[in-house]
Amino acid sequence: MSNIIDPIIILVQPQLGENIGATARAMLNCGLTSLRIVKPRDGWPNSKAVRSSSGAESIIYNAGIYQTSLEALSDLNFTLACTSRKRDLSKNQLNIDDALDQYLENSENIGRWGIMFGSESSGLKNDDLDYSDILLSIPSNKSFESFNLSHAVLIVCFHWMKKSRELISNNKDSHTNINNLLATKNDLSGFFSQLENDLEKGGFLYPPEKAPKMIKNLRAIFLRSKLSKKEVKTLRGVITAIKRAGMSL
Amino acid sequence: MSNIIDPIIILVQPQLGENIGATARAMLNCGLTSLRIVKPRDGWPNSKAVRSSSGAESIIYNAGIYQTSLEALSDLNFTLACTSRKRDLSKNQLNIDDALDQYLENSENIGRWGIMFGSESSGLKNDDLDYSDILLSIPSNKSFESFNLSHAVLIVCFHWMKKSRELISNNKDSHTNINNLLATKNDLSGFFSQLENDLEKGGFLYPPEKAPKMIKNLRAIFLRSKLSKKEVKTLRGVITAIKRAGMSL
Repeated sequence: MSNIIDPIIILVQPQLGENIGATARAMLNCGLTSLRIVKPRDGWPNSKAVRSSSGAESIIYNAGIYQTSLEALSDLNFTLACTSRKRDLSKNQLNIDDALDQYLENSENIGRWGIMFGSESSGLKNDDLDYSDILLSIPSNKSFESFNLSHAVLIVCFHWMKKSRELISNNKDSHTNINNLLATKNDLSGFFSQLENDLEKGGFLYPPEKAPKMIKNLRAIFLRSKLSKKEVKTLRGVITAIKRAGMSL
Repeated sequence: MSNIIDPIIILVQPQLGENIGATARAMLNCGLTSLRIVKPRDGWPNSKAVRSSSGAESIIYNAGIYQTSLEALSDLNFTLACTSRKRDLSKNQLNIDDALDQYLENSENIGRWGIMFGSESSGLKNDDLDYSDILLSIPSNKSFESFNLSHAVLIVCFHWMKKSRELISNNKDSHTNINNLLATKNDLSGFFSQLENDLEKGGFLYPPEKAPKMIKNLRAIFLRSKLSKKEVKTLRGVITAIKRAGMSL
């Protein structure tokens, strides 16, 4: 988790300078600074974009300008594409949190990465999606779905800011106290084995055909609370202690 | 929880018609329709507001126009005020989630409620806050904090949409299956007594001076996973089964 980096925002064929400027402002509000633009309709540079960035003009001046989506993505290892339409493609379509998690879970193997947004009028075209890894869709009112371009960028950047801050603060905690580290899947698996072994002995997993479902529900309770390493150790001690309490029965 | 209603959005002295229109669009994207405006700088009606609402003009046409904040709030029972500045006031300043939860936790006693946003140039004035219950602040890049007006409204409305949808889907689940109802404090207290009683017998709560802290940490694990009634019953069965497993030791 130590090498997470901020995404590059990529606007494909944006139309209005005002929206490009408002996008830059939204990005900087959320701490993001890297913008790429594919074929801006009204040419480049664009004074309206500078003006409507309201102080975030350094993002506008430093924006990379490209002729095709492929050029804009060529040095990235991972790309999310923001799209509201359901598409008949063999790609994962995820909500914002799950899509960002896909990056976080693989950040060790990813260098530069980006999030792509289409034009105001028609969004991303299928061709633009050729090199995107995951389609991200923003939830909305089903009868009024179309977000302003800078609004769509804002929602995604804001979620990224919240999520990356949480991660950083969790990391800080775990540096100061190794016990706050989240349990590994291996820790959990040891705990589950111990628990389920005793439940078997105690006759809890009955009738046998229902056991897999019972185990699944029980694991879900503990998975939901995102146990730390220390807590798993505590819970294993709890099982042992309850067994000892049973010896006097 | 059955009587939760959507908030009214209140813009106090907004300046640009474009921002009022973009606010209406953002609201409708998130399923909100009720807008009030206190003293719009450029008068009313405002054709720029209609144009930039991009299809959400019914919100603009139906907006209530007021001369003072107090008038705009007079029939509301509860108001959040969005403000980024730290203020020397005796009011709660909460993040978005906690602020919205304050409404949800008290929705039984609240009828109409609203969320207030200040002008582009100076935000809400202290006078505007006289009748607000809670100050809501939006997290941001500390060195570039000022959001575009419609962006600030969007972030809050979007969080409201997500949160209220979650609530509704939880409610649906609990209507179809009584077992998904969240456990009551009484259910939890019965479970904790059983658990802690056995831990005492099993010698887990040792040394005695550390017992209160140990119990607190252990309860925290289960509180975090927001147990349903059915799950509490399952966990009580788990304790009994582990004890039975101990009888053979």
